[in-house]
Amino acid sequence: MSAARMLTGDRPTGRLHLGHYVGSIANRVKLHQHYESFFIIADLHMLTTRNSREDIEQVSHNAREMVTDILAAGVEPDRATFYLQSAIPEVGDLNTLFQNLVTVPRLERVPSLKEMSRDAGKEEMPYGLLGYPVLQAADILCVKGQVVPVGKDNAAHVEVTREIARRFNHLYGEVFPVPEMIMSETPTLVGTDGAGKMSKSKGNAIALSDDPATVRRKVLGMYTDPNRVRADVPGTVEGNPVFAYLDVFHTDRATVEELKARYRAGRVGDVEVKEELVGALNRFLDPVRERRARFEGQRGLVDELIVEGTERTRAQVRRTLVEVRRAMGLTSAYTQVRRRAERYRKAVGTPA
Amino acid sequence: MSAARMLTGDRPTGRLHLGHYVGSIANRVKLHQHYESFFIIADLHMLTTRNSREDIEQVSHNAREMVTDILAAGVEPDRATFYLQSAIPEVGDLNTLFQNLVTVPRLERVPSLKEMSRDAGKEEMPYGLLGYPVLQAADILCVKGQVVPVGKDNAAHVEVTREIARRFNHLYGEVFPVPEMIMSETPTLVGTDGAGKMSKSKGNAIALSDDPATVRRKVLGMYTDPNRVRADVPGTVEGNPVFAYLDVFHTDRATVEELKARYRAGRVGDVEVKEELVGALNRFLDPVRERRARFEGQRGLVDELIVEGTERTRAQVRRTLVEVRRAMGLTSAYTQVRRRAERYRKAVGTPA
Repeated sequence: MSAARMLTGDRPTGRLHLGHYVGSIANRVKLHQHYESFFIIADLHMLTTRNSREDIEQVSHNAREMVTDILAAGVEPDRATFYLQSAIPEVGDLNTLFQNLVTVPRLERVPSLKEMSRDAGKEEMPYGLLGYPVLQAADILCVKGQVVPVGKDNAAHVEVTREIARRFNHLYGEVFPVPEMIMSETPTLVGTDGAGKMSKSKGNAIALSDDPATVRRKVLGMYTDPNRVRADVPGTVEGNPVFAYLDVFHTDRATVEELKARYRAGRVGDVEVKEELVGALNRFLDPVRERRARFEGQRGLVDELIVEGTERTRAQVRRTLVEVRRAMGLTSAYTQVRRRAERYRKAVGTPA
Repeated sequence: MSAARMLTGDRPTGRLHLGHYVGSIANRVKLHQHYESFFIIADLHMLTTRNSREDIEQVSHNAREMVTDILAAGVEPDRATFYLQSAIPEVGDLNTLFQNLVTVPRLERVPSLKEMSRDAGKEEMPYGLLGYPVLQAADILCVKGQVVPVGKDNAAHVEVTREIARRFNHLYGEVFPVPEMIMSETPTLVGTDGAGKMSKSKGNAIALSDDPATVRRKVLGMYTDPNRVRADVPGTVEGNPVFAYLDVFHTDRATVEELKARYRAGRVGDVEVKEELVGALNRFLDPVRERRARFEGQRGLVDELIVEGTERTRAQVRRTLVEVRRAMGLTSAYTQVRRRAERYRKAVGTPA
C-alpha cells in the first residue's frame, strides 16, 4: 500500500525563523517521512490580504527562500513535492465549483478569519478572505489530500474542507477522500524582545539562515529579567525568553536546569546564560546551515524542485478536475452539445 | 472602428415564454444589431442556487432550447456568439482572482441576492450566491465586454463589475474596459392566470414555441374580469391580462382602443376579445415559429453554434487570462523560478 497523501504549506513569506521551526516546520520534518507530502506555496492565499503589485513581485524570491529553509530544516527533496499555487489555474476552477457547497454563515463562524482581516488592516472583510477555507479545500482536495497537519488555529479551516468533501461526495458521488487532521501542538516562540510572538516584521526574530555571529549578536541583545541589574540579584526564569529558548533548543536538560537554579539564586551572570544559548542555537543551526549551503551552492536547484513539483502537481490537479466535472455532470452537458454538433457537421459536410 | 462588445445572457432555463420576450429578449434582438454580441449560457450561475446532478443533467437540453428560442426571436446567428459558461474553466480562475477586489459588506449591499436566496428556498445564503456579482464580473470582463444591457434588477450587479474593473486597473494597470450599462425598461408580463408574473413553473406561461392551437387554448382559458358574468356587463380593462397582452402584441392600436371602449361599455363578449388576442399573438409568433422550424430542421445546427461560440469565446478568455496574470505579476513570479530552473538543468546537464 502506498503512503497516504499529506498536504501542508504556507504563504510565501520569505526566510523562516525559529518561531516557524518550532510552530510547524519541526513537525513537518517528522511527518514528511511517513506520507507522500505536498508542500503548497500558497500565493493565492497571500492575495486575500496582500495583493499589490509589490506584494506579488516578492513571491518568486520569497518562495525560493522559504523552500530553501524547509529543505535546510531537514525535509528531504525526494520525499516532498513543492508547488506554486498560482501556477495551477485549475485550482481557481475547483474553488469556483466548491463555492456553492458552503454557506456564508458557516464561513462567518470560522473563528480566525475576522482576526486575519483585522491584522491585515482591512476595514471590511475581503470576499476572498471569507472564502479562505474554500480555497484551502480546493488546495487539499485538488491533490486528494488524505491527511493535513493542523494546529488549533487552522483545525476550523480544515473542518470546512471535510464538510465540502462530504457534501460533494453526497451530491455527485465519491470523488474525494474526507481528509483526516493530524492535530499537533503548535507552540509559539516568544521574540528576542520578550514582547509577543517571534515575527520578522517586529524585528525580534532569529532566522534559520542567520550566521553564528548574527545569532550571537541577537542573543546577547535579548531581553531578560529587567529587575536583574547585577549577576547576584536573584532572577526570574518564567517568561524569560532566554530560558524559553534554552528549554526548546538545548539538548542537555541537566545543564539547563542547573542554569535555571543558579539564575534564580543570583549565582550566574546574564552573559554566561546567553553564551550557553548561543552555543545551543549554533549547534542546532549548524546542520541547517550546512544543508542550506549545499542547496544554495547548486544555484537553481531549489527552483528546479519547485518547477518539477508544480508540473507534477498540475498534472494531478488536471486529473482531479476531469473527475470532478465528470461527476458533477458538467462534462456530459457539453459533450452532448458537441456530439450533436459533430453529427451536424458530418451531415452538412463542414470540416470539423 | 469595430463595434463595441456586448455581453448578455441567462441561466439555461429551457424554452422561453412571452414574459422573457417582453422582459429582455426583444431588447436584445434590437441591440445585437449594433454590437459584437456574446450570449452567455450561465450554467455556473445556476449552480449558485440549483446544483443537484438532476439540475445539471438538464443543462444541455435547456441550453439548446433557450438558444433556439433566442434565434427564433430574431437574433441572427452570424451576429452573435453563444457560449456555455461551464465549458470555459478559465472563468473560474478569473473569478478566484477577482474575489479579493471586493468586500463582503459591499456584496451584502447588493439588493437582489437575499431575495434570490429566499426564492431558491435556502435557509442560509450559499457563499457562491453572495459572490454572484463577482462571477458575473468574470463573465463580462473575461471577454472584455464594453456594454451590458441591464434592467433595474441587475444594474446593481453590474455596478460591482464596474468597481472590480476599476480596482483591477488601479492595482495592476489598464487591462479592462469599465463596461457601460445600457439601461432599459424590463417590463414584466402578467401570467395567463392574472396572478403575478408569467412563469413556466406557475403554469401561466405562453411559450414562444407554442403552436397556434395551444396558444388559442391558453388564451381562451385566460383570466379576465371576474365580475363580468355576461357580455353586457361593463368590464374592467385595467389589470385585465387579456388587454395587457393586447397592448403589447397587437400591432393596431386603433383596434385595441375600440375593443377597450366596447369592453368598458359592456358591448363585447370575452370570447371576441380573446379571439382578437389569439390572432394578434399568432401573427406575432408566426415568424418566430418559422425561424424555430428552420433551426430545428437542421438538427445539430444550434449545438454547432454553441460549440463554435464556446471555442471562440474560450480562445478570447485565454488571451484575457494571459494578460491578467501578466499584469498582476503572477506570470513573472513563476517565470523567474522557471528561468533559474532551466539554467540549473543546463548546468547539470539534466534533460529539460
